[in-house]
Formats: sequence, structure tokens, C-alpha cells
Amino acid sequence: MAVYTDIRDDELAAYLTLYDIGLLHSLKGIAEGVENSNYLMATDAGMFVLTLYEKRVKAADLPFFLGLMDHLAARGMNCPRPVAMRNGQMLGRLAGKPSAIVTFLDGVSVRRPSADHCRQVGAQLARLHLSAADFPIRRPNALTLENWRPLFESSAERCHEVEPNLGDFIRAELDHLERRWPSGLPSGVIHADLFRDNVFFLKDELSGIIDFYFACNDLLAYDLAICLNAWCFEQDWSFNVTKARSMLQGYMSGRPLSRQEFDALPVLARGSALRFLLTRLYDWLNVPPGALVVPHDPLEYLAKLRFHQGVDKAEAYGLDFADAAGAR
Amino acid sequence: MAVYTDIRDDELAAYLTLYDIGLLHSLKGIAEGVENSNYLMATDAGMFVLTLYEKRVKAADLPFFLGLMDHLAARGMNCPRPVAMRNGQMLGRLAGKPSAIVTFLDGVSVRRPSADHCRQVGAQLARLHLSAADFPIRRPNALTLENWRPLFESSAERCHEVEPNLGDFIRAELDHLERRWPSGLPSGVIHADLFRDNVFFLKDELSGIIDFYFACNDLLAYDLAICLNAWCFEQDWSFNVTKARSMLQGYMSGRPLSRQEFDALPVLARGSALRFLLTRLYDWLNVPPGALVVPHDPLEYLAKLRFHQGVDKAEAYGLDFADAAGAR
Repeated sequence: MAVYTDIRDDELAAYLTLYDIGLLHSLKGIAEGVENSNYLMATDAGMFVLTLYEKRVKAADLPFFLGLMDHLAARGMNCPRPVAMRNGQMLGRLAGKPSAIVTFLDGVSVRRPSADHCRQVGAQLARLHLSAADFPIRRPNALTLENWRPLFESSAERCHEVEPNLGDFIRAELDHLERRWPSGLPSGVIHADLFRDNVFFLKDELSGIIDFYFACNDLLAYDLAICLNAWCFEQDWSFNVTKARSMLQGYMSGRPLSRQEFDALPVLARGSALRFLLTRLYDWLNVPPGALVVPHDPLEYLAKLRFHQGVDKAEAYGLDFADAAGAR
Repeated sequence: MAVYTDIRDDELAAYLTLYDIGLLHSLKGIAEGVENSNYLMATDAGMFVLTLYEKRVKAADLPFFLGLMDHLAARGMNCPRPVAMRNGQMLGRLAGKPSAIVTFLDGVSVRRPSADHCRQVGAQLARLHLSAADFPIRRPNALTLENWRPLFESSAERCHEVEPNLGDFIRAELDHLERRWPSGLPSGVIHADLFRDNVFFLKDELSGIIDFYFACNDLLAYDLAICLNAWCFEQDWSFNVTKARSMLQGYMSGRPLSRQEFDALPVLARGSALRFLLTRLYDWLNVPPGALVVPHDPLEYLAKLRFHQGVDKAEAYGLDFADAAGAR
């Protein structure tokens, strides 16, 4: 949860005059996202989310994030749409921070997704990949293969505090991934963080996706591997192959995977599991004094990584490629 | 800010069937109140606040708090009104905690109140005191005169960490207050925590008051003294006598103070300042590891206490009693 910055009422009133959304009715700091300060805001024109970008988000990346949401919303996707100021700009400045106002999305995230939820998430992810294909700005992924080893080194000395011999385990995995990481797969804009908190449902129908602040350019199938890890394991960290099949079917109903992408899923899933293991490990070992955020457990992603290490072929995720391709 | 408890979507859906407010559209943890977990909730029937009562609130006190809000709302006051379940009960149970749903109030709190804001707060406080006069449940104030010395003793050993000689200063003040605390003044239900965060305005008109979880029975004029301390000092902790006069006039427009109450304001203001100094001191010295709340600065209330120590007569708060009484 995250509200790092207080906003003075007079500066907020002045800020809102830059927009055509009327007067303020209500403002509540909300516990959503860990990178920024978010406020649920009601005005004459309805409900919005006001975001102040804190220092963990690079100001230079904001045109990519806001432009992407605007681009996707213009193509009919249910995602927050930045509200333009009267001068046409989407990026403002409030309380000394870069800021934006986006539309509010109805819906609630699910804690225990069903196979049908997973199918819808897969289909929505495919739609995102297709809709973003002509988005003109590029943002390299700052948390992909070549970043993982330096990220690990920053935790290497203390990672045995989390589990004995974890350092050796991660080094061996890095060696493996650096040898086996696929090249030549389709690349494009990925969400890169489509966890359960970031997908809303209304009456079990997917109603929107939020939090594009990790979006970047990378392998499209890697985004699907991130979702497999985030959605298809149970609370006890066991893998649910029915949910995985459903998610893959949902994705392929919108954007069929190539044979190469399908076959790469196990290594991409290992990479995705390692990426979240490494960031969680870092956050776990570096909780700042007075932190407002409780770090996620790195061991969850260690368990997921171990599962994928035991996967030989992508068929283990519940789908026969020939059948899936033929079913279309 | 405070969201201590996660709610599973399935248990929330089941809980909402106990109410007649339709299906869930949206749920956001909000940064409001430090004692409980609060969620802004939209359903078919509109906007509500869902509260889970955490362990700092005694379950035995909940009928007082919920009953008081219901009582005041029934008398036309703009405060959150508990929504009754189909079975007539206001107090429920969710995620293993006592819980309630109350109506949502429009409005925003002001950071830098004007004299007119202070006048409205005074008038609203008087209205609360009058409206609650026939509320049948009683709740003794757990943070009044006789509780202050034991509360201080729990911080006494380490209070020099906040300021040198603070212990001697507080002991002398306790001696003074125990000798001079007034008796025989009108008593009733007080809000006891009507700080700026707990009062909403819309276009500079007071639109509601919230957070009744310190409400209790005590001297009515003591509640006014709490508000003088919370509203009539500037950001640099200097006293603004124009705002104080305005607040007293607002209060007396609804409920005239007796001569005895008026004359007691300086000692009540000292007591109120000491009460918040002591709780802030305790919280400051006892921040739990992993705390989600940044404690308030105890020195703010030390400065306010010192100001009131220099006040000889209540006229120093900007109002001549005979004039104020005659003006009605």
C-alpha cells in the first residue's frame, strides 16, 4: 500500500483548474500500487484516480506509460485512460511531483481465480499485445535477462538468510538461462506485471486491467509466462494445470503462439520466476526503516522456479500444441 | 494510513448477501483512520465505507460507536450512518474481525482552515453535543484526567529522548491539572477527536464529520478545547486568536457556554494538549517494527501546552464572555 505524499487542499484546487473535470467532491488515499501515491478522486465529472509519481518511477518513462494507456483505451481496451489537461498535456505536476489523472475502472480483483478467470486473463493479454502493436514509443525492459545477474549480486552476500545455499542455486539458474534464453521470438509491448491485483472483474467478467508502470518492450510469450506464474499456482504454491491450459487457450484464441514460442514457455517461465524471486529477494533484504510496504515472500517464487525446472516440455502446461493450433 | 486486513473476494461476496445493497462494483483499501482497516466500496446501491475493527478498538465499545452514528444521522447530522443488515444488526463479522458498513460522505478535509472553517466546526460541535444529549448508551472516556498519569509513567523513563527534562515538565503539569480540573461542568457525549482529517467540506461548507471511535462521555467544553488545539494553531504552532474567536462564536451560536465553562477553557485546553502530548509521546517511543503508521510529532502538543500555560483568562482566546453572551 502506498500513499507517500500529502497534497495540500489549496494546491489540489489550483491543479484541478487545469482540467475540465469540475470541482472536487472527495479525495481518498488508496492502497494500490507500491511505486506511486494514488488517490481515488470524485469530481463533478465522476470518479478518477490521481497519481503522484514517486522517485521509483523515472520521469522519462512517463510519456511511455501514459501514452500506452491512452493508446490502448483508444482501441477499446478497459484500462485507465489519462485525462488530458485543457492544454492537451496528460502529464502534470502536483505537490512537487509529476502527476496524472486517469479514469476510474469498476471491478474487483480476485484472490482465488478460477480456470475461467485465467482464460479471460489470457485472452485479455493477447488483446493487449495486438492492440499495442502499433504503439510508437519504445521502452526496453529494465528487468530482463541481462539485468538479473547484477540484481542478484546486490543480494548475493545475504541471500542465505532467506534459504541456505540459495546463492549457488540462483547462480546455476542464471547460467542455465543465459545459455538457453530464446532469440528470434516475436517481441512487442508487454504489461510485465499482470498479477491478480492488476486485473478487475465484475460478476466474473473481466472488466479492466491497471498498473502499466512495468510495461516495456520484450518477448510477448514472456508476458504470458509471467501470467502463468501469477495466476496458475494455488495458495500452497502447487501448479494448477487446468488453469494453465485455460489461460493458454484464452491467449491463443486471440493471438496464436508459434511453435517456437510454445516450446520456449518452460524456459520463459523459469526466467519469469527468477525475475520475481530476485526482486522480492532484494526487497526482502532491504526493507527501509519505517517502510510502509510489507515485502512479498521470495520463497513463493523459488517454489515456482523449482516447479518449472522440472518441466521438460511445454505440454506439461496442459496443452498439446498441435491440438491447440488445430482447434482454432 | 491503515489497511491491516486483506479480505478474500469469496468471503466478501458472502458477507454482502447479508445486506440489501446489491452486488460489489469496486473495493479499495483507503488510508483513513489509524485504528481500523477501511475500504471504499461501490455497490449497486452506491458508495459505502466498509470497516474491519482491529484489535485497538474494543469490541464491547462497538455498539456505542455504531449506535451513536446512527443516532446522530437520524437527527440529520452529516455523519456516516451504519447500514443495517437484513436481520436488523449493524455489527457484522468479516475476515475474522468485527465489521460494519457505513454510508459514504462527500467532502474533503482542509489542511489550512480559515476562520470561517473554524466557525463552522464550532457550530457543528455544538450541534453534535445537543443531538447526542438523548443518546442512551454511555462510554467513559478512557483518556481523561485520571488516565494521564499512568499513561505518562509508561513513557517516563524514555521521554528525555524527545526533549531534555520533559519528565519533570509533565509531572508538574499533571500536579497542576489534578488540582485545578473543573468539576460540575455540563457533561455528555463528546467526539473527542475532531481533528482536521475528520471534518469534510464541500466548496467551503462543512459537509460532514467522521471517525467516532474516540467518542465517549466527558465534559462538553473539553471537546471544544480539543478543537481549539486542533484547528486554531498555525503550521508553525503559533496560536491564531481570530480562528479561536470564530470557533467559540460558532459553538456558542448553537450551545451557549456557561460562565463556568468559559472560565474553564484555559485549564481544559491545557488538559487537552497534555492528553495528545502523552499519547503521541507513547506512540513515538513505541513504534512497532514494520509499523504502517508514521507517528505524529509529540513536540507539536508540547508547544500548544506551553501556549496555554501562559493564558491567564479565557478572554485570551479572543472573546469577551459578556459580549458573547449578550450578542445572542
